[in-house]
Amino acid sequence: MTIEPFTFDLVAREGRARAGVFRTPHGDLLTPVFAPVGTQATVKAVTPAQLDEIGASLVLANTYHLYLRPGADLVEEMGGVHEFMRWPKPMLTDSGGFQVFSLNDMRKVDEEGVTFKSHIDGSTHRLTPEKAISIEQQLGADIIMAFDECAVPTDRAYSQRAMIRTHAWAERCLKAKTRPDQALFGIVQGGIFPDLRTQSAEYIASLGFPGHAIGGLSVGESKTDMHAMIEVVNDILPENKPRYLMGVGSPEDLINGVLRGVDIFDCVLPTRLARHQSAMTFTGRINLMNAVHARDKRPISEDCGCYTCQNFSRAYLRHLIVAKEMLASTLISIHNIYTLVELMRRSRQAILDGRFTLFAADFLEHYNQK
Amino acid sequence: MTIEPFTFDLVAREGRARAGVFRTPHGDLLTPVFAPVGTQATVKAVTPAQLDEIGASLVLANTYHLYLRPGADLVEEMGGVHEFMRWPKPMLTDSGGFQVFSLNDMRKVDEEGVTFKSHIDGSTHRLTPEKAISIEQQLGADIIMAFDECAVPTDRAYSQRAMIRTHAWAERCLKAKTRPDQALFGIVQGGIFPDLRTQSAEYIASLGFPGHAIGGLSVGESKTDMHAMIEVVNDILPENKPRYLMGVGSPEDLINGVLRGVDIFDCVLPTRLARHQSAMTFTGRINLMNAVHARDKRPISEDCGCYTCQNFSRAYLRHLIVAKEMLASTLISIHNIYTLVELMRRSRQAILDGRFTLFAADFLEHYNQK
Repeated sequence: MTIEPFTFDLVAREGRARAGVFRTPHGDLLTPVFAPVGTQATVKAVTPAQLDEIGASLVLANTYHLYLRPGADLVEEMGGVHEFMRWPKPMLTDSGGFQVFSLNDMRKVDEEGVTFKSHIDGSTHRLTPEKAISIEQQLGADIIMAFDECAVPTDRAYSQRAMIRTHAWAERCLKAKTRPDQALFGIVQGGIFPDLRTQSAEYIASLGFPGHAIGGLSVGESKTDMHAMIEVVNDILPENKPRYLMGVGSPEDLINGVLRGVDIFDCVLPTRLARHQSAMTFTGRINLMNAVHARDKRPISEDCGCYTCQNFSRAYLRHLIVAKEMLASTLISIHNIYTLVELMRRSRQAILDGRFTLFAADFLEHYNQK
Repeated sequence: MTIEPFTFDLVAREGRARAGVFRTPHGDLLTPVFAPVGTQATVKAVTPAQLDEIGASLVLANTYHLYLRPGADLVEEMGGVHEFMRWPKPMLTDSGGFQVFSLNDMRKVDEEGVTFKSHIDGSTHRLTPEKAISIEQQLGADIIMAFDECAVPTDRAYSQRAMIRTHAWAERCLKAKTRPDQALFGIVQGGIFPDLRTQSAEYIASLGFPGHAIGGLSVGESKTDMHAMIEVVNDILPENKPRYLMGVGSPEDLINGVLRGVDIFDCVLPTRLARHQSAMTFTGRINLMNAVHARDKRPISEDCGCYTCQNFSRAYLRHLIVAKEMLASTLISIHNIYTLVELMRRSRQAILDGRFTLFAADFLEHYNQK
């Protein structure tokens, strides 16, 4: 029996939370799932072998960065991003939209697309929905994202304009896409405004994408607003397709997302925090630079199964940090990614066992958000 | 049958080249062997698991660096340097002498020892033979080195003074050492002067160390002088004890050392070159930053068995370098250390097979020293 790629099977539900299987040409994603970010076709400081040992299944790469350097033509010539960075499991690329709109003074948007200057050398480039899809097809990830406009979420007029443009661009992305071995996900926008989010979710859902993303969140709005928007959108998006909350991140945001029906997450947080000496745990963050760890023989987390915690003391990690050794970033990144991958694995098991509601409540009660 | 630690068995010879087994409390060293350097209790950018996969068997750590940071008391409290950095196989520490004498204006030597200022914070410290041994005993490596004075090798008067002091200090080190699970190696000095080297080798050999090192080479003298000094010294040092050429390094220097009866080498070269985008191969160095590699699908070396060459293209490595990604240092370090470890493994096999003379001649003929 051949299984069609990009089918999504829900295997268990508990409230709004879901456990599923999303089939891709590079293997199955067991959802909910957290994807570490490999911005420039590398998850910073971590080898693919280490990612595999961590149990990561989905890796995100950034279209904006790879388009500028080394270039989509080169990545395509090298066999695509999987082969280039040697990640044999599923991959996802964003469309470049978020990065381009983050350039602020260095970009100009019109109905057709966005003209922007490279952060590397100031050279001028232009992305359109068609161009973004063309680049994503050259990169060759399993899941590719529509080119959207991410507005300041609290600005209603801007959010509405960006949403309307995002809808038009979503249709153009669908028309531009040709590769059958890639799934194009549509993105819901609408800022923190329930009526806009409703309108956007209904429109994007009507276009027949094999999966949907919630964009424009975790960009400065309150947690209350973020949770409300996820609920509004997920009440509308079809149950039988995966839902991806873009750019989210922290352990409590992941649990809150799963509680509200999200299946896929990605974030630079675990690797970025690692490069700033901060270890993520199920009860909060630990700044390993702190002198209190200087003679501490314990690992970051006593009950963590990662390579770092199975081997190294806080004292050693602090020494590496103080001595400015690269290995600190590697070992803390391994731990932080493992923490989020393991949190999603445990959440999935809890959903399968029908005890996720209690698991999530217990987790959030003990998590220190400081 | 219990085998006494620190026994050294020669299993084959060819000319002056030797294949041996040196037994330590943390396992056997199959010689000739190359030791990567973990200056601050980490081989830069490489995990112990990766070192193990490379096949490294001996790792060097620097007493000067660990004494200053995090401190020998702390390392001892954490269970010693093996446990601290989680390297379960044999380790070696130098005495700190070489680093201290490299401080130039920041140190003052007398007959008792050396007073110096820390490169980290300028604080004043003092090392004597007794203090160096005490620190090395706290660190707990399998092989520890006598505290010696390394002179400018072309300055005869200085070389002679330093040699005489090194001899007096060697005796004090022997008296100071108490741990039975560590082997203290004596160091031969004498610059580029055959008569001084002869005198030093005879004196150091007379003291009954379980192993001997050749110090003060690869510090600016000519290759001809280096080779001549190795020959002079190894003609005198006893056959039945291991010989360690300190701070050497390049593939051609390793082969030339093995040809002249050296058993152990260490050098920062493979990891330092890796951080400067330079890959070591059996035929010379490759600067991976060079644009010629931008679209090259080949690995660094087609016939290399390391993780890097088994997976990644030169194009990808160059991309990581250009994009300033830490993974570049990790992957090139893995390759460079593997190259030297593998070169020693092949040399050992060639000695066992009685074909090392031809192997070495062939290697040196094809090696581009530029």
